[in-house]
Amino acid sequence: MNFNQAREHLKNVLLPTHLIYSPIFSEESGNQIYIKPENLQKTGAFKIRGAYNKILKLTDDEKKRGVIASSAGNHAQGVAYAARELGIKAVIVMPTTTPLIKVESTKKYGAEVVLHGDVYDDAYQKAKELEAQEGYVFVHPFNDQDVLEGQGTIALDILDELPQTDVIVVPIGGGGLISGIACAAKQIKPSIKIVGVEPSGAASATEALKKNKVITLPEANTIADGTAVKRIGELNFDYIKQYVDEVVTVDDYELTEAFLLLAEKHKLIAENSGILPLAALKKLEDKGKNIVPVVSGGNMDVLMISSMINKGLISRNRIFNFSVNIPDRPGELAKITHIIAQAGANIVKLAHNQFKNLSRFRDKEVQITVETNGSAHIQKLIELFEEKGYKIS
Amino acid sequence: MNFNQAREHLKNVLLPTHLIYSPIFSEESGNQIYIKPENLQKTGAFKIRGAYNKILKLTDDEKKRGVIASSAGNHAQGVAYAARELGIKAVIVMPTTTPLIKVESTKKYGAEVVLHGDVYDDAYQKAKELEAQEGYVFVHPFNDQDVLEGQGTIALDILDELPQTDVIVVPIGGGGLISGIACAAKQIKPSIKIVGVEPSGAASATEALKKNKVITLPEANTIADGTAVKRIGELNFDYIKQYVDEVVTVDDYELTEAFLLLAEKHKLIAENSGILPLAALKKLEDKGKNIVPVVSGGNMDVLMISSMINKGLISRNRIFNFSVNIPDRPGELAKITHIIAQAGANIVKLAHNQFKNLSRFRDKEVQITVETNGSAHIQKLIELFEEKGYKIS
Repeated sequence: MNFNQAREHLKNVLLPTHLIYSPIFSEESGNQIYIKPENLQKTGAFKIRGAYNKILKLTDDEKKRGVIASSAGNHAQGVAYAARELGIKAVIVMPTTTPLIKVESTKKYGAEVVLHGDVYDDAYQKAKELEAQEGYVFVHPFNDQDVLEGQGTIALDILDELPQTDVIVVPIGGGGLISGIACAAKQIKPSIKIVGVEPSGAASATEALKKNKVITLPEANTIADGTAVKRIGELNFDYIKQYVDEVVTVDDYELTEAFLLLAEKHKLIAENSGILPLAALKKLEDKGKNIVPVVSGGNMDVLMISSMINKGLISRNRIFNFSVNIPDRPGELAKITHIIAQAGANIVKLAHNQFKNLSRFRDKEVQITVETNGSAHIQKLIELFEEKGYKIS
Repeated sequence: MNFNQAREHLKNVLLPTHLIYSPIFSEESGNQIYIKPENLQKTGAFKIRGAYNKILKLTDDEKKRGVIASSAGNHAQGVAYAARELGIKAVIVMPTTTPLIKVESTKKYGAEVVLHGDVYDDAYQKAKELEAQEGYVFVHPFNDQDVLEGQGTIALDILDELPQTDVIVVPIGGGGLISGIACAAKQIKPSIKIVGVEPSGAASATEALKKNKVITLPEANTIADGTAVKRIGELNFDYIKQYVDEVVTVDDYELTEAFLLLAEKHKLIAENSGILPLAALKKLEDKGKNIVPVVSGGNMDVLMISSMINKGLISRNRIFNFSVNIPDRPGELAKITHIIAQAGANIVKLAHNQFKNLSRFRDKEVQITVETNGSAHIQKLIELFEEKGYKIS
């Protein structure tokens, strides 16, 4: 593959995504961490690199026929954007369940959007049908040499900017991004280490490596929707076996914490799949190394951002849910709220449910949600309640 | 003021914060918008520029005495960081109500933190006391020539990178940032226009300009806590009168929308005060100009981020709260939820309150919160309910 040529193709298309040194992730992992922020790339993800390189390399005849792709995510936007830049017709098949906001941003880049089927597989089938019927050229999101060549240009960026990079950490969904990066990086610097990261609920590369063949997972269950892929590409599996040194998995909880740190300390939003390499940093055995996690994309619906933050706050004990039983008589609720105020905690929600207890006239349960400063603060709150003779559960 | 010298002082301290072209804000305002992202600056805000320049310029004797400041926000972190870099003792007085997270990040930069009083004014008084008692040098957040000189370096960055800048838009709290930027920018390019932006709930510069003297507002009521300043500096008022062309105000609702756009389209988090210039862009009469809004900082507690997003979702009709009266008999709730499913909306919360209606046995009210794709989707949902004979309120 000719990564330098691909980079030349992309020169005037891409935004520069300079490495960002991260004091917080460096401290946490005992290495020097430099984030490659492809969430700040045009269309909000790296996908434009592969899509543009692929479409540019089509023959004139193929270009005239136009391209087709199926995707509910970043690939849709990458293909749509690249086709518009190159003056080529693009049709994108998306599942009917795709959030309207993603449908609209794909249309905004000039693509014709066909909504079909409930899940990705249906949309994929429809796209293959249209490919056959209409003669469009199908642009696969990962199982394609020209696409990989485009994605690999990320490694060139990284090694230009930080030649002393020791490790690159990359998300794995279908395997396109890591195949390109691993192959390109090892061409330039054979000693470099490439680590892949999968969500533990969709570890199709891990399973393939174990069985030494590409397999289809029965299900993909993860909040990292962009890498919720049940089967990696055949082509990609070959590259992973040859060039990737290690594959690790991270769970949803670890993603949530890394998401919060990135938002809080770096003021950056990334989508869950893009967070995978950050969440994996603590799991690496390397110490004192120059490590580049590739934050692959940032396209996340605001509702999802809100839900990630709320989950993160609960897991950090910044939001604390508890219930307390109080005698059912006037003034008891005032006592409770007074204790909470004393502890310096802020009540977010308070509900009491008189039907929950069988002995209706003895006790009632009050369910309370408060904002706190963390575990020590919660401890203080619990102690105050216990001092006053209440039991918290 | 010698801004070039200040810039020289700061050369090895600052992170580069390159301008970011914004398609979305450009389209919205009819100009070419280039964001100056000081939320990505070291310590998460521009304050380090002024604090470092001030402390560096102290005499050797003053440096030995150490510095003191009062702040619950970015100035605390700026002073603490600058003092540590220069090997100088720093004491920061913070109100006892300061979120633990901000106290800890200030301590992390090596400052001694004194918690005192409930509000900023108490902390300020305490800092002035300690200045007198202990001989520390007080570092004022805005009413100080050397601090302004540091803040003004932002104008040099901007005009170096985009000499054809026509307008710079800057938040106003105490007035330090805009004084420095306006003075520096007009030294270099007298034709440049400088626009200040205040929260409408704390418009102390607007009022001062109206009365032609610095006044103290009775209260400051805004979600933009960093610029919730009741009285701008005397020194700053002079600079604003001389160099600022226009001051506009924005309200909390406008901040919320700009916050969401920045997170969604640019994957960037900024604090509410930092958002002020973005929220003001639609209000400018300029068209077709090169405009640089200075996003001054990004230090926002994750709880606040969550609350901003939730408010934004409601104001965008992405979250829709409604209630519907249904007959109190089995199966009615199933009908309701079926209609919502038909409309393709996702139920977030559902509560029914049998006590709300006096005629207990006739109707009950169900309160429902759903996720939608926006206004058109909500309209569809309402129509479906009305078709089936339900009334939504």
